[in-house]
Amino acid sequence: MDEHEISKAVVKRLPRYYRYLGDLMEAKVERISSGELSNLMNVTASQIRQDLNNFGGFGQQGYGYNVRYLYQEIGKILGLDKVYSMVIVGAGNLGQALANYVKFEKRGFWIKGIFDVNPRLEGMTVRGIEIRMVDELAQFIRDNEIQIAALTLPKAGAEEIAPILVENGVKAIWNFAHTDLKVPPDVVVESVHLSESLMQLSYRLNHLDNK
Amino acid sequence: MDEHEISKAVVKRLPRYYRYLGDLMEAKVERISSGELSNLMNVTASQIRQDLNNFGGFGQQGYGYNVRYLYQEIGKILGLDKVYSMVIVGAGNLGQALANYVKFEKRGFWIKGIFDVNPRLEGMTVRGIEIRMVDELAQFIRDNEIQIAALTLPKAGAEEIAPILVENGVKAIWNFAHTDLKVPPDVVVESVHLSESLMQLSYRLNHLDNK
Repeated sequence: MDEHEISKAVVKRLPRYYRYLGDLMEAKVERISSGELSNLMNVTASQIRQDLNNFGGFGQQGYGYNVRYLYQEIGKILGLDKVYSMVIVGAGNLGQALANYVKFEKRGFWIKGIFDVNPRLEGMTVRGIEIRMVDELAQFIRDNEIQIAALTLPKAGAEEIAPILVENGVKAIWNFAHTDLKVPPDVVVESVHLSESLMQLSYRLNHLDNK
Repeated sequence: MDEHEISKAVVKRLPRYYRYLGDLMEAKVERISSGELSNLMNVTASQIRQDLNNFGGFGQQGYGYNVRYLYQEIGKILGLDKVYSMVIVGAGNLGQALANYVKFEKRGFWIKGIFDVNPRLEGMTVRGIEIRMVDELAQFIRDNEIQIAALTLPKAGAEEIAPILVENGVKAIWNFAHTDLKVPPDVVVESVHLSESLMQLSYRLNHLDNK
């Protein structure tokens, strides 16, 4: 299989398949047809078949999909069969929300450290993880071979911290700041812009006929 | 102008234009050419012209765009010229992060109440807003004509609360739970699935050549 051919649109849909298949596994469902999955996910059965054909199909005529197998294969494609070392930079409510979300660890994302600039937070812990000061960040990243950093701090701070992350070996930034970070081509930035999501909501609320 | 013709892809890009134009205004920039905006935003100038032509253009040959005017017009399209009454259901870290984000109020999203099921949080306040118990939610929504609800609670809770919101008049749900809520066609759901965003990041980290 040539993964280069997988379109961005398909990749964007994979986590949703993964979520539904995980729910099915929890509900002890062992196999499912594309028609049933289609009803559940509210997308067409042909879309499902097309999407999953990108990865060799996984389905068998007359049997449907083996839920656990498909879940595992999509997990591998998404890189969830590996373990990642992660830091959170910004120990405010949002940083703490991420640190408290245990499911990330189940998926292989290990939060090794939490950093902040506020000296009043130094030494406090979130779910057993000590909050450290940002001046220790560079050394910590190198010592712990951190691959992923979540940036949950304001724009100016994020722009200041991003180069430190990159220089010390971080390969992926999960960016919650309201800015598009500039990074070298071998570093990934995945942004969650909450304000922009709220604007989409307000647009759709005002154009309900165009929902 | 017929807004029905605006594609979803364009609408998705509008908040980013709005963010850049806001930054330009803060930097006291009064006008900008599509070429300059293109460099800044890292999209092609023709894309920018095409996108903004959807709304009548706003640009003048040889002058470029008037930053404040364009900012205001895009704001209107996004519904940011209005005021919305909002509640947050789920007073954990994520709910508190939203409640503490003052910029939402500047954009017209007024947080009128925060709700939770945990009696230990009752009466506590976040930025002056009292945390109330979920059994008061229905009455509160009606009394305060709440239009938008942010759901920052686990999946099962979100699925339980969504019908209460809808029955009492909420028209838009900003959903942070890991589930696709089922609502009537006249209600908007805009979801932020953090786990799925992290999976996109890990996919891209593992397929850097395909970034």
